[in-house]
Amino acid sequence: MMKLDKSAVCEVAFMSTSYKSVNAYLRFLRDRMGLHICIKDFCGFIPINKELDEALRPFLAHTNPFCMYIKSDQDHYRDCLSMIRLMYNKCGRTPGTYFGMCHAGLGEYVVPIRSDGTLLGSINAGFFQFDEGRSMVRIRRTCARHTPLDGEEALRLYRSCIRTPEGVAGADILPGLELLADFLGQTYRMLRPTHNTPSQSRRYHNSSEDTILTHAIEYIRLNASGHITMADLSRFCHCSESYLSRIFKRRTGININVYVNKVRIELAKNHLLLSSENIAEIAAGVGFNDPNYFSRVFTNIIGISPTEFRRRFQGQLPSNPEAEPQEPVLPQPRREFVGHRIPPP
Amino acid sequence: MMKLDKSAVCEVAFMSTSYKSVNAYLRFLRDRMGLHICIKDFCGFIPINKELDEALRPFLAHTNPFCMYIKSDQDHYRDCLSMIRLMYNKCGRTPGTYFGMCHAGLGEYVVPIRSDGTLLGSINAGFFQFDEGRSMVRIRRTCARHTPLDGEEALRLYRSCIRTPEGVAGADILPGLELLADFLGQTYRMLRPTHNTPSQSRRYHNSSEDTILTHAIEYIRLNASGHITMADLSRFCHCSESYLSRIFKRRTGININVYVNKVRIELAKNHLLLSSENIAEIAAGVGFNDPNYFSRVFTNIIGISPTEFRRRFQGQLPSNPEAEPQEPVLPQPRREFVGHRIPPP
Repeated sequence: MMKLDKSAVCEVAFMSTSYKSVNAYLRFLRDRMGLHICIKDFCGFIPINKELDEALRPFLAHTNPFCMYIKSDQDHYRDCLSMIRLMYNKCGRTPGTYFGMCHAGLGEYVVPIRSDGTLLGSINAGFFQFDEGRSMVRIRRTCARHTPLDGEEALRLYRSCIRTPEGVAGADILPGLELLADFLGQTYRMLRPTHNTPSQSRRYHNSSEDTILTHAIEYIRLNASGHITMADLSRFCHCSESYLSRIFKRRTGININVYVNKVRIELAKNHLLLSSENIAEIAAGVGFNDPNYFSRVFTNIIGISPTEFRRRFQGQLPSNPEAEPQEPVLPQPRREFVGHRIPPP
Repeated sequence: MMKLDKSAVCEVAFMSTSYKSVNAYLRFLRDRMGLHICIKDFCGFIPINKELDEALRPFLAHTNPFCMYIKSDQDHYRDCLSMIRLMYNKCGRTPGTYFGMCHAGLGEYVVPIRSDGTLLGSINAGFFQFDEGRSMVRIRRTCARHTPLDGEEALRLYRSCIRTPEGVAGADILPGLELLADFLGQTYRMLRPTHNTPSQSRRYHNSSEDTILTHAIEYIRLNASGHITMADLSRFCHCSESYLSRIFKRRTGININVYVNKVRIELAKNHLLLSSENIAEIAAGVGFNDPNYFSRVFTNIIGISPTEFRRRFQGQLPSNPEAEPQEPVLPQPRREFVGHRIPPP
């Protein structure tokens, strides 16, 4: 049974409707099947549509502790990015899905996304430990190469977070991934006539943008309840503050500080519904020093005050996410809860 | 691990490429997840494209022994068809997926297929026994209603073939089904401008056609190795021989006797590769009385004689369907084997 996951609530609340099933399917693969999903965009096809971009955004880079540790070193971060070109070449040579291993020893299925024969990107699903010995060699070699990374720490992180999802084989996930790849290919075919197709020269540029964007979003998710500075955030993303601000605004349509506030307000909504903490405690718990400022931001984003929100909706959150949801009637048309319309049989 | 299923081989061999992932995903749900899948077409959107029709054709009606027993009575066959209108109405009233039960006591998830708000059809996934008592009441009531059906036989068939797939919950299948429904909706949006959209008056006409077509295909599959007459086939489909011939030709592009031969030749290919029987035995085993006629038909369809086919490809069939397939180089461009390109990790 799926647990109510705070990060999932954030994503759902931010989602438009057009590609909701795409986003929901990716979350299902991640949360229920235990997969690490990463969408690679070889030609910049994702940002041509805002809603598609929104649906795929949480899945544009690996953000597990092992990968983040490897990528904390700038040279290895660049190596990770350069994997995209290798993958592009291999997808070009391989007619269909293949199984591959990255420079840091992670094994994943790579499902190409094509449209009318043109290679657009790939859906990568990991991690499967099919040759642990080879993975160990790669991790040690990667860390040994004149870097501040500690091989033993990398191995510890690998062992604790990289594992074949229990009871899941390729045959359980590939038909769905190939269906999704065809859906994305068809989506591009539909969008292309009415959107600017990215030029060849932007081919890998977008992929690096995707990685920065995903890292920024992940950093904000992990640190939303604490203190977030642009300096720390841009260091985490291996780019300048101004470049980060620019691509974040262009891709999400909002400034980083607005986005941080939105994430914090989503967290606050959960606290309001699930805890008995008072408003000041909740404000502090989601990174606001000033409870009055918190209330203003909350009212601005949600349309009603935190107190009013709690009064109206507390007790309405379904404890079983598969149970008939009681949709809150909010002033703004947005979906609030993760859950199915269907009672389990 | 999936078993090599003869009927699956037939379907793959007949498939064009455009909607291969749709067909593969439906077969995955049926063969690996143990679901009974049925696609309902409320407005005739499936036949507007030959390849889409081909991909969905095996899934247009329930053909399990229980349903076939109930539908063997013409009144109940009509009741099954009339369920489509009820389902259409319910899909119109319900914003998303729901769980429903048919007049004969079968419970299934119903996932609406929409395009720009228009309801096109639904994907039904069963069977889940969420209220066996209620199912029993419905089965007994259905069989008691002035028909030649035997309630005890119906119950026996229900108990032997209708069951909740082991370990599968709604949460395991709904994200994929909703993705597929969106994919089909988008497919219709793409095809509509270049295809004749069916008129409102044909709304349920097509659904009845779908059911007849699926029943005919199922009957041929079940009886391919025996004797098939048009009289038996049309009686099984509750329609006249001429009507059956007409819609079969229109939807599949070939005459029924040609289709029967194609199915028999697919079966023969398996026998040639997997058994040591001689050509005359194989011909008899797949419904041909005359081995010379069998050889002529085989050569005509496959491009080489049965003996030559066995010589070239015997021993090449992968014993593990997930293993790297060794594609046979056939004179005609068609895929022969069920299998993934990927070695299991």
